[in-house]
Amino acid sequence: MPPTHDTGEPGATVGPRQPAASRRDPHWRTAITHVERDRILVRGYPVDEMMGRLSFGEAVYLLLVGELPSAAIGKLMEALLVSSVDHSVTPPSTLAARCVATTGAPLRASVAAGVLAFGRYHGGDIESCMRCLEAGVTMVRGGMSHEEAAERLVADYRARHEPVPGFGHRIHAHDPRAARIFQMALELDLDGEHTHMVRATERALNRDRVDGPIPINVDGAIAAVCSDIGLDAAVGNALFIISRVPGLIAHAYEEQERERRMRQIDVSNAIYDGPSERRLPETRRER
Amino acid sequence: MPPTHDTGEPGATVGPRQPAASRRDPHWRTAITHVERDRILVRGYPVDEMMGRLSFGEAVYLLLVGELPSAAIGKLMEALLVSSVDHSVTPPSTLAARCVATTGAPLRASVAAGVLAFGRYHGGDIESCMRCLEAGVTMVRGGMSHEEAAERLVADYRARHEPVPGFGHRIHAHDPRAARIFQMALELDLDGEHTHMVRATERALNRDRVDGPIPINVDGAIAAVCSDIGLDAAVGNALFIISRVPGLIAHAYEEQERERRMRQIDVSNAIYDGPSERRLPETRRER
Amino acid sequence: MPPTHDTGEPGATVGPRQPAASRRDPHWRTAITHVERDRILVRGYPVDEMMGRLSFGEAVYLLLVGELPSAAIGKLMEALLVSSVDHSVTPPSTLAARCVATTGAPLRASVAAGVLAFGRYHGGDIESCMRCLEAGVTMVRGGMSHEEAAERLVADYRARHEPVPGFGHRIHAHDPRAARIFQMALELDLDGEHTHMVRATERALNRDRVDGPIPINVDGAIAAVCSDIGLDAAVGNALFIISRVPGLIAHAYEEQERERRMRQIDVSNAIYDGPSERRLPETRRER
Amino acid sequence: MPPTHDTGEPGATVGPRQPAASRRDPHWRTAITHVERDRILVRGYPVDEMMGRLSFGEAVYLLLVGELPSAAIGKLMEALLVSSVDHSVTPPSTLAARCVATTGAPLRASVAAGVLAFGRYHGGDIESCMRCLEAGVTMVRGGMSHEEAAERLVADYRARHEPVPGFGHRIHAHDPRAARIFQMALELDLDGEHTHMVRATERALNRDRVDGPIPINVDGAIAAVCSDIGLDAAVGNALFIISRVPGLIAHAYEEQERERRMRQIDVSNAIYDGPSERRLPETRRER
Repeated sequence: MPPTHDTGEPGATVGPRQPAASRRDPHWRTAITHVERDRILVRGYPVDEMMGRLSFGEAVYLLLVGELPSAAIGKLMEALLVSSVDHSVTPPSTLAARCVATTGAPLRASVAAGVLAFGRYHGGDIESCMRCLEAGVTMVRGGMSHEEAAERLVADYRARHEPVPGFGHRIHAHDPRAARIFQMALELDLDGEHTHMVRATERALNRDRVDGPIPINVDGAIAAVCSDIGLDAAVGNALFIISRVPGLIAHAYEEQERERRMRQIDVSNAIYDGPSERRLPETRRER
Repeated sequence: MPPTHDTGEPGATVGPRQPAASRRDPHWRTAITHVERDRILVRGYPVDEMMGRLSFGEAVYLLLVGELPSAAIGKLMEALLVSSVDHSVTPPSTLAARCVATTGAPLRASVAAGVLAFGRYHGGDIESCMRCLEAGVTMVRGGMSHEEAAERLVADYRARHEPVPGFGHRIHAHDPRAARIFQMALELDLDGEHTHMVRATERALNRDRVDGPIPINVDGAIAAVCSDIGLDAAVGNALFIISRVPGLIAHAYEEQERERRMRQIDVSNAIYDGPSERRLPETRRER
Repeated sequence: MPPTHDTGEPGATVGPRQPAASRRDPHWRTAITHVERDRILVRGYPVDEMMGRLSFGEAVYLLLVGELPSAAIGKLMEALLVSSVDHSVTPPSTLAARCVATTGAPLRASVAAGVLAFGRYHGGDIESCMRCLEAGVTMVRGGMSHEEAAERLVADYRARHEPVPGFGHRIHAHDPRAARIFQMALELDLDGEHTHMVRATERALNRDRVDGPIPINVDGAIAAVCSDIGLDAAVGNALFIISRVPGLIAHAYEEQERERRMRQIDVSNAIYDGPSERRLPETRRER
Repeated sequence: MPPTHDTGEPGATVGPRQPAASRRDPHWRTAITHVERDRILVRGYPVDEMMGRLSFGEAVYLLLVGELPSAAIGKLMEALLVSSVDHSVTPPSTLAARCVATTGAPLRASVAAGVLAFGRYHGGDIESCMRCLEAGVTMVRGGMSHEEAAERLVADYRARHEPVPGFGHRIHAHDPRAARIFQMALELDLDGEHTHMVRATERALNRDRVDGPIPINVDGAIAAVCSDIGLDAAVGNALFIISRVPGLIAHAYEEQERERRMRQIDVSNAIYDGPSERRLPETRRER
């Protein structure tokens, strides 16, 4: 069946995955959530039971993977979601969200515009980094050492004049988020072969490099641990998207609360006037 | 090139909140996040310290309110984010996300389309419900009883032939999510006057009603507790948006994994084939 | 039945317009386009016959109104679509589209983000201006003079401390697009009572105004003539959206062709380096 | 605050096209539109002069290419924009737009969601088809015959198990839009080597094919003539996006006018109840 344009008729374009049956049977299947009167089951679990007993990060894992994560993976999921919650006004996605907010649009429009700015060079890196690491791990399983596989990966990207996904940051020499992710993965005993692969790739990338090292960035760290805890590369960008939405909302809200309408937003003129650095309290008030 | 925009008299560009100074001073201010080399401070807290020590719900509260929540509010925030994580293929937002996914678009495009479907009648209800409850609470502070204020609110909506926001659900007679939210708010000692107000409104709405009660829905429950824990109505829709993004991603991912491309998606033909009802385990495996 | 959240079940929310029948009959109706094998009828006309015989503006009118426009209205439609085709890099919508483009996202993502920035204060004014003018015309039909109706409208907006939609522009004292639209409407003998109403409103708005007149802007001109040629206020923003999409695309394309990826876009640093002012040739080369 | 972004090594921010200078010079350049008080120049032409003298299709060409089209190209541009103006409720993009509309969202949100559904398999085909045809034309310039080049192209796609972009349609055996586009290009003497290439590709694709021919679809026809009239493949999808926006708006508007809110939209239950087939009048009424 040839590809087609402009129609959603059954069989419009028959992708590789289509079960033969579905040409006749009008029904299709979903395994995510079952809803009936006064009952909502997410992957089989009553959502009202999940509330208060599962963290949001555990619920996200359940949705994306289909089963509950271990306690350790749950802790890591929450940390990953916290890691990218905001990065100030400088990413194009934040500016896009503020540009929409200044026109008097609702929050959801700002969020949608910001999410659309998670392009190939911004957040979109995670999926490609996961695929890169998986390629390396496959070579290792084929008998190569991590060093050999890493050299091969780096050589391939250099041959294509493409940057290796998950490495380098314009501001951060040692991205504090990446460091913390690897530290937690280690403490939680969750660092697996993709983490080893990204480390080997970092060494290969920086061996005999003259003008300063190219460090692993937060995308690379998230990619490595996501592969190690069993997330599919196809949802690799999911955690970054989910994590950043609150930041987009905070900026859209601040834009509408603090600034005049229809202003021209020049990011280079932004000044931070929030709280100066502070430590998290050892204990938190109960109420 | 001079700054310009496509519409509006001076009043349109110069909003009420604009500080007189800002006409001269090109700088503008943001109090959300400070970023410098190897340092990211969210509301003053190093993001790498937040990772592993704050839940995602606590980080969201910090972003939206500016300060850390109490332990109790943090627990409630996580529960609220879990409550609306998915509602199967029935909402228009989920169908919109799947329609985008079947065309071969990336996850972020499906998420954006889904978020755009959180219109006035779908998720958008939370903000209007918060404003409604705030109006009621203001009347109470002015000396009315909760009952009188609720009667007034309901009368006003009926006079305008508008439904009271936060009430009624096509499928659920007793929304399990709403019930659980109120139960948790009570247990955590977080139920305040907006919760009392929504309860009074429910009684007023259903008094001398013949054709079956109109129950509080999950929007109404989220609205009441969000007001009680200090969230601004202007970000009232934020929790629903953040909560549902993982569901949109799960459906976009499933669509691309299980179905053929460019199909015509008829929701009435969807069959749930996921796990049947199961209980959360008492204890979770560590690793 | 009250409104509901989170579900798309039949009857989820029963709007005022729902025909009683539709509760039983699963079918629903569309009057826009009929498609069958090798045949596409738009409002009854074969699309391949329309090609080359209808202008795009005439096709847009046919889609939105349901019938063919007169030759004069067709000419005006094309002019209206040309009027707002671009306004340089300064509108927030253009910046939003460029912010998405710089992240390596596809054209459609830039277009979507730009369209989302057509908020209440940017393009969204047309619909509200149409409703304002219709209110005025209704008063005139009720016996008031245009002057009295205009005074009433202006007084109402002032009482609500709201700007009158369709008036004022940060840059343009005499918007050349608005002037040309009114001139064409006059030449084409298409200026009707809404055009008279907007004129009267301009006089009322500027009478005894000290600090400079507030001119009609392009939104106000489009609103007036759209009402006069029979477009519904509910699609009032349609022409601006359609008209500006090519501009959004041109900017997204230029951004990706001329600039480095992931740049921080400061509009105040933009310099125009295109062709200097030139006249349209009297005659055009045939091929 | 330093400029930053969330991902990418230095290479990610510093693209190949960046002029060395721009690291120091904060200014950047745009050649599309110049705006100053009471003056708007699009590619150098006063927009108010363009109104009434340029068709929308000519203005779109001017924006995308930078110069005025010939009279013939202008006629073809209008026809291309009319060709894809709507395709009923069957495409996923139309359903996505309606799903957003049924939630009470504004037109622009429906348009954005619909545009996001112009994914790789829906409209996105045009750019890939243009690149495919350009590859073929390059081979021809290198000395191959059109037949040889076409055989090579088809063989390459078959080897990659990918459909050839621009061919095949689920509903249409002979897409009336494609036929009309080729007829007009011929009549206007605008059919060039890309048109010859797509024809040769069609022959190669269908030679010794048993189960029915795979016809050129409207994407393929638009792709061929767009290349022949000098549009860049990078804006190949632009015409389809611009052309379909009015259709998305018409469906969002009809959804909100005719249907109940928050309904579950099953496309297989849609019935066309618009005008039956009619011919365009030979002459049009003037007013």
